[in-house]
Amino acid sequence: MQTIQSDSYPIFFENSIQELVNFVEQGNYSRCFILTDENTGEYCLPAVQTALAHLDKTDIIEVNAGEESKNIDFCAGIWKMLIDFGADRKALMINVGGGVVTDMGGFVASTYKRGIDFVQVPTSLLAQVDASVGGKTGVDLDGVKNIIGTFTQPKAVFINIDFLQTMPPRQILSGLAEMLKHGLIVDQAYWDSLKTSDLSLPSVDLVHRSVEIKNEVVIEDPHEKGIRKALNLGHTIGHAVETWSLMNNEDHLTHGEAIAIGMICEAWLSNKKIGLPDDELAEITSVLMKLYPKYDLQEDSFGTLLQHMQNDKKNENGNINFTLLTRIGQYSIDNVCTPAEICDSLRYYAAL
Amino acid sequence: MQTIQSDSYPIFFENSIQELVNFVEQGNYSRCFILTDENTGEYCLPAVQTALAHLDKTDIIEVNAGEESKNIDFCAGIWKMLIDFGADRKALMINVGGGVVTDMGGFVASTYKRGIDFVQVPTSLLAQVDASVGGKTGVDLDGVKNIIGTFTQPKAVFINIDFLQTMPPRQILSGLAEMLKHGLIVDQAYWDSLKTSDLSLPSVDLVHRSVEIKNEVVIEDPHEKGIRKALNLGHTIGHAVETWSLMNNEDHLTHGEAIAIGMICEAWLSNKKIGLPDDELAEITSVLMKLYPKYDLQEDSFGTLLQHMQNDKKNENGNINFTLLTRIGQYSIDNVCTPAEICDSLRYYAAL
Repeated sequence: MQTIQSDSYPIFFENSIQELVNFVEQGNYSRCFILTDENTGEYCLPAVQTALAHLDKTDIIEVNAGEESKNIDFCAGIWKMLIDFGADRKALMINVGGGVVTDMGGFVASTYKRGIDFVQVPTSLLAQVDASVGGKTGVDLDGVKNIIGTFTQPKAVFINIDFLQTMPPRQILSGLAEMLKHGLIVDQAYWDSLKTSDLSLPSVDLVHRSVEIKNEVVIEDPHEKGIRKALNLGHTIGHAVETWSLMNNEDHLTHGEAIAIGMICEAWLSNKKIGLPDDELAEITSVLMKLYPKYDLQEDSFGTLLQHMQNDKKNENGNINFTLLTRIGQYSIDNVCTPAEICDSLRYYAAL
Repeated sequence: MQTIQSDSYPIFFENSIQELVNFVEQGNYSRCFILTDENTGEYCLPAVQTALAHLDKTDIIEVNAGEESKNIDFCAGIWKMLIDFGADRKALMINVGGGVVTDMGGFVASTYKRGIDFVQVPTSLLAQVDASVGGKTGVDLDGVKNIIGTFTQPKAVFINIDFLQTMPPRQILSGLAEMLKHGLIVDQAYWDSLKTSDLSLPSVDLVHRSVEIKNEVVIEDPHEKGIRKALNLGHTIGHAVETWSLMNNEDHLTHGEAIAIGMICEAWLSNKKIGLPDDELAEITSVLMKLYPKYDLQEDSFGTLLQHMQNDKKNENGNINFTLLTRIGQYSIDNVCTPAEICDSLRYYAAL
């Protein structure tokens, strides 16, 4: 499996842990700090830790698992630990975990002493195909996702597909939503192959292709001025539903479950507004509904959902902006939809 | 007075408020947020606010004055206000204040939605000659100064010398320390002219020359890998003394008062270690002791001071690194001094 060369850093797929060891050995780092969470600590961390043990310069910083930890208070805790450990500008941060760890670890590293090096070791499918590529770091504030962050590239990404074997199926499905999105926006053949694959544990080829697509898009547009917006498919409505669920459901939606809902609603908007064919709307709806459980979307949440969409980073001048599809595999950016149209798309989902 | 062109942005000295208005009018900003503190709000803000009033798109965010406010909690407060105001990526942050406001405002802007534009309107002499130029943003954490931040350039800097007329003399002296430093590191003639000027209110020419020096240094080395370290003269010891004073004295030292102490100690180290001539050490000591009140530096604080120095961003591998002088106007970077030497330099100051 070929290493993908991103803008300024490599993304490894083979012998990734050994590649990480090589990277640390060759870098002139004063010390390494592994950021991880409880869950990752149990399953994936030992492999990384053992491989790096002989270097004798690694400390572990563990945070609570879950999106609730991805906030400024946890960042302050990590920054304080770095101060206490005496981390200098030549320190390396190794983020071993899911998207919470890679996003937050990237932000902490990019702002500690005005920036130290960091690498990503994504252990969830979602982090492998999404969070670890593209240089977006960030944390949530006041219920707004990723509202605080920087654009900072890691020095390398190490993807180890074996880590997925310990993942609960629901978490695999969460990452899969992003892979399906990659197909929908630019690659119909990839969408077709995902549709017909056994997706309980995606193959390394499928993961590799997904990273390749995301990487191609972000290299062309690192700061999200144009084509990178293609990646927002499903996310305008999906993020709002995710935030709502995080605040209202004890067993809240995963990112992928929310994005799947977003993709169905936004496929409906695509059909109404820019001519996505009826049969493709039906196909997208049916594939996603088969993979993801139905969520009970209530009419009385629509007002709050619209408010979340208005707060979204992606929007300007109070308009709500969408990436839609003209066909499966063909995206269209900067489509403004009205609150009434958005509510109708939510009703389409609710009535399925 | 000529506008200084920095790397990617202009630094205005004439008709600065009108230039700010022009800048805002020409920029396609959705909204402007003026960050300011209580003191600035009283004296300088009205001029800025009145000039921008006709655009009808300005909100004010006010923080408490003083270094104690320059922390992550205040950042969280400002980020939350930006969210509440519905600030989007096309928003502009206008930082009107001293170094606390320009450093913290720069950090908040550089991380809100992964970065919005900001401009600096420094109202203190210190902020005019130091904080507003160079692209360093940051806040303090756990008593460590500027430990969290980014390297992000403002879109423009507007220096209005008239703002200094309302400044207390002690604050003028605080900024003056940085100007004297600029002379010491690269320009003996400038040092000489400062020595012989009436410094109760420095002329616009003196301020302009200081900004010019700092700008030349940081353009050559934006990320502090080499020559920018010249600017650290007086700051390794000075920052430690400043932090100590902030934590132990109710009426704590100003930045400039602490840096003046640092420059005296580091001139002593320069004399002992790299041959700064005796008469130049005597001259530096006498000029600074005439301008700044003597601070009671106690032997029992030395341990804590050394610890602060070890935590300094500038240091690597546990060594304490200094920028020293071979002559007045000639700096030398990366001089490691031992704890014993550092304590001796503190004793030199204490015995004056």
